[in-house]
Amino acid sequence: MAYYRFPYESIDRFCTDAFKTMGYTENESKIITDVLLMSDLFGIESHGVSRIIRYSKTVEKGLVDTKAKAEIIKETPVSCVVDAHKCMGQLAGHLAMEKAIEKAKTTGIGISVVKNSNHYGIAGYYAKMACDEGLLGLCMTNSEAIMVPTYARKAALGSNPLAIAFPAEPYDFLFDASTTVVTRGKLEIYNKQAKPVPDGWALDATGKGSSNAEDVLLNIANKKGGGITPLGGLTELLGGHKGYGYGMLVEIFCSILSGGSTSNHTFEGDATGICHSFIAINPDIFGNREEIKERFSAFLQELRDMPKAEGAERIYTHGEKEVEAEKYNRENGIPINDVTLGEMDDIAKLCGLDLEKYLGSLEGKISKKDSIYS
Amino acid sequence: MAYYRFPYESIDRFCTDAFKTMGYTENESKIITDVLLMSDLFGIESHGVSRIIRYSKTVEKGLVDTKAKAEIIKETPVSCVVDAHKCMGQLAGHLAMEKAIEKAKTTGIGISVVKNSNHYGIAGYYAKMACDEGLLGLCMTNSEAIMVPTYARKAALGSNPLAIAFPAEPYDFLFDASTTVVTRGKLEIYNKQAKPVPDGWALDATGKGSSNAEDVLLNIANKKGGGITPLGGLTELLGGHKGYGYGMLVEIFCSILSGGSTSNHTFEGDATGICHSFIAINPDIFGNREEIKERFSAFLQELRDMPKAEGAERIYTHGEKEVEAEKYNRENGIPINDVTLGEMDDIAKLCGLDLEKYLGSLEGKISKKDSIYS
Repeated sequence: MAYYRFPYESIDRFCTDAFKTMGYTENESKIITDVLLMSDLFGIESHGVSRIIRYSKTVEKGLVDTKAKAEIIKETPVSCVVDAHKCMGQLAGHLAMEKAIEKAKTTGIGISVVKNSNHYGIAGYYAKMACDEGLLGLCMTNSEAIMVPTYARKAALGSNPLAIAFPAEPYDFLFDASTTVVTRGKLEIYNKQAKPVPDGWALDATGKGSSNAEDVLLNIANKKGGGITPLGGLTELLGGHKGYGYGMLVEIFCSILSGGSTSNHTFEGDATGICHSFIAINPDIFGNREEIKERFSAFLQELRDMPKAEGAERIYTHGEKEVEAEKYNRENGIPINDVTLGEMDDIAKLCGLDLEKYLGSLEGKISKKDSIYS
Repeated sequence: MAYYRFPYESIDRFCTDAFKTMGYTENESKIITDVLLMSDLFGIESHGVSRIIRYSKTVEKGLVDTKAKAEIIKETPVSCVVDAHKCMGQLAGHLAMEKAIEKAKTTGIGISVVKNSNHYGIAGYYAKMACDEGLLGLCMTNSEAIMVPTYARKAALGSNPLAIAFPAEPYDFLFDASTTVVTRGKLEIYNKQAKPVPDGWALDATGKGSSNAEDVLLNIANKKGGGITPLGGLTELLGGHKGYGYGMLVEIFCSILSGGSTSNHTFEGDATGICHSFIAINPDIFGNREEIKERFSAFLQELRDMPKAEGAERIYTHGEKEVEAEKYNRENGIPINDVTLGEMDDIAKLCGLDLEKYLGSLEGKISKKDSIYS
C-alpha cells in the first residue's frame, strides 16, 4: 500500500465541494469535512477522509438522510435531547455540543444526548470544541456492535469511545479511545497487511481468542458471533469486565438516556440509529479557571518528566501525539493511501468533480480495490 | 487463613460503637460503618471491616482529624466544592453526594468535588446513594499513587476507581472498578498466599513486568518505583494508555477541579489529601424515568440472555454479583478472617470494648499478625 501526501487545504476543498454536491449547504459541508480532516491531521486515518466512500454509501442506502435537520425535542437549562432524524452524525454532533457549551457557559454544566444519528467521526473533535472554549469537554457515542461482553460469544456493544478534553499548556489534554482493546479499524489494517492479530484482541464465532482478522471482521459484519474484546481482554483476569463496564457507561449516556437504539440494535431496517452524548463543564463553578489550568499543566509536566521504564524513550500525556501529528501534517501534507485515492476518485465522478483539479496529477497513484464489506 | 461468619447486625453494632469511642456522633459512626459493611456485604473484603485497623492508625497518625467537619466552600445551583479538612472520607463523601442529589432533584444535575479528604470506602456506595433516589449516580476518587503511567517506571496515579449506578429491574446496574488492572488489595491477597501474580498486573522498580507481589507492594509503600499497571497492561499493545487515560479522567474530576492533591502528592506531610467527585443526574430531564428504566432493564436482560462463550456458564451485568453476595451474606453472616478478627480485637481493647460481647466466643479464632506495612 503506497501513501502520498497532499496539502490539507486541497483535501479540505475537495471534501467540502463533494459534500455540497450531495445536497449539504456550504456551512454543513464545512462542518462534516472539518471533523473528518481533524482525524487525518491527528494521524487517525481510519476516521478521516478514508471514510468518505462509506459516507457516500450510507447516503445511497438511505441510512443517512441528506435533507434531515437535527431537532431539539426536549430542553432544560442544563440539558437537551436531540433527535437527529437520520442526518449526518457530524451535524447532529456539532449542534449538540454547541448547545452543551452554551448551557455550560450559563449554568455551569450542559449535557446533550442525541438519538437517531449516524457515524460522527472522532469523539475527540467534540470534546475539543468545549476545551477550545476553556471548558471541560466529554463526548461519547455508541456504534455498530463489535464488543463481546465478558463470557458472551457475540458482539453486543459498540466500540463505544469516550473522549475527554481539558485546557492545559503547552498542550491541551485530549484522551479519545474506544472501550474495546482496539477499534475495528485496527483489525482492518491487520487484514489488509495479512498479519495475524495479537493475542487478546479478538474472538472467533465460538467466543474463543482468534488471530484471524478477516474471519473476525466478516463475522462481525454478518452477525455470526465473535468480535473484539473489551479493554482488559477476554476474561476477568486482566479486567475485561472493566472494559465491558466502560462500554456500558457509554451506552447509558448515549442510547439509554436519549431513548435511542442500543448498540445491539443499531443498523436495523433503514437506519443506523447511532446515539451520542456531549457534556461541557465550566471550571469557573469550582474555582479560578486560570489557576486550575496552571495546576493541571504542572501535573502533566510532572508526568512527562518522570523516570522512564527501561528501554522506553518518552512518557506521553494524552493529546501530545495528536498535537505533534497535526503540526507535521499541516506542514508536510496529509498522507493518503492509493486505495483511498481510488475511492475519492469514485466519489469525484459520482459528484461530477475532477479530483486532479484539487490534488494535481494522480497518474500511477490510484488503486481500485473492493472493500471486504462490499 | 481461616474465615468465620458473623451476623451483619453484630459487626454493625461493634463498628458503630468503636467509631463512637473514637469521637464520632451516633449518626457519623453509622455512616462510616454503613459504607464499610456494604463492601463486606458485596463480598469486597479489602474495603470492608478489614480496613478498621488502618482507619484507626490514620487517626493515630493525625492523617484523619476526628473533630473536623467537611465544609462547603463554594456552591452554585448545579455544583459544590467541599473542603473535607481531613475528616473521615465517608463523612465528606456522604455529605457531597447528598448535595449532588439535592441539586440533581432541583436543576437536573449536581456535581460535588471534594479536597483534603481521606479514604472513603467503596466508590460504589455513593453512586448507589443516587441510584436509590432514581438518579444516575457517578463517583470517583483518587488515592495513593499505585498506577504506573505507560512507559514510566514509578507510580503517579492512584487506583482511581470510577463507579456508576443506574436503576434497573430486577437488579440495579452498578459498576465500580479501579482504572488499574487490579487493586492493591488483590496484590495483598496474592502476597498473603505467597503466590506469583499473573503477567500484566505489576511492574518492578525498573518498570519491567513483575510477578513478585511482596516486592511490588513494598516498592509502592516506600516509593521506590514500579507499581500496578493501568487497565490494558504495560504497553499500548493491549491498551495500557487507555487505562492510564481513564485514570487521568478520574484525576481531573477529583484533584484538578477541586484544587486538591493529585495522586502523586497524596500522603505528603501530615495529610493524605485524597480528593473525590460525585455526580447525580436526574433522568427526568431526558424523558420519562419509568420508560428509561424499563428500556434499560430490557437491554440488560438481552445481555444476560446472549449465547455464552464455549465453557462459560453465565453472562453477568454489573451489580448482579453484588446483589447475590449481599443476599447470601445477610442470610449467612459476613465472612471475617482470623487476622482481621485479631485487628478488631486490638481496636476493641483500644476503645475499651469487649469484642466477644458483640461476636460471641472467639476462642481459637483470632490470629495476631503484623501487616507488611507496619
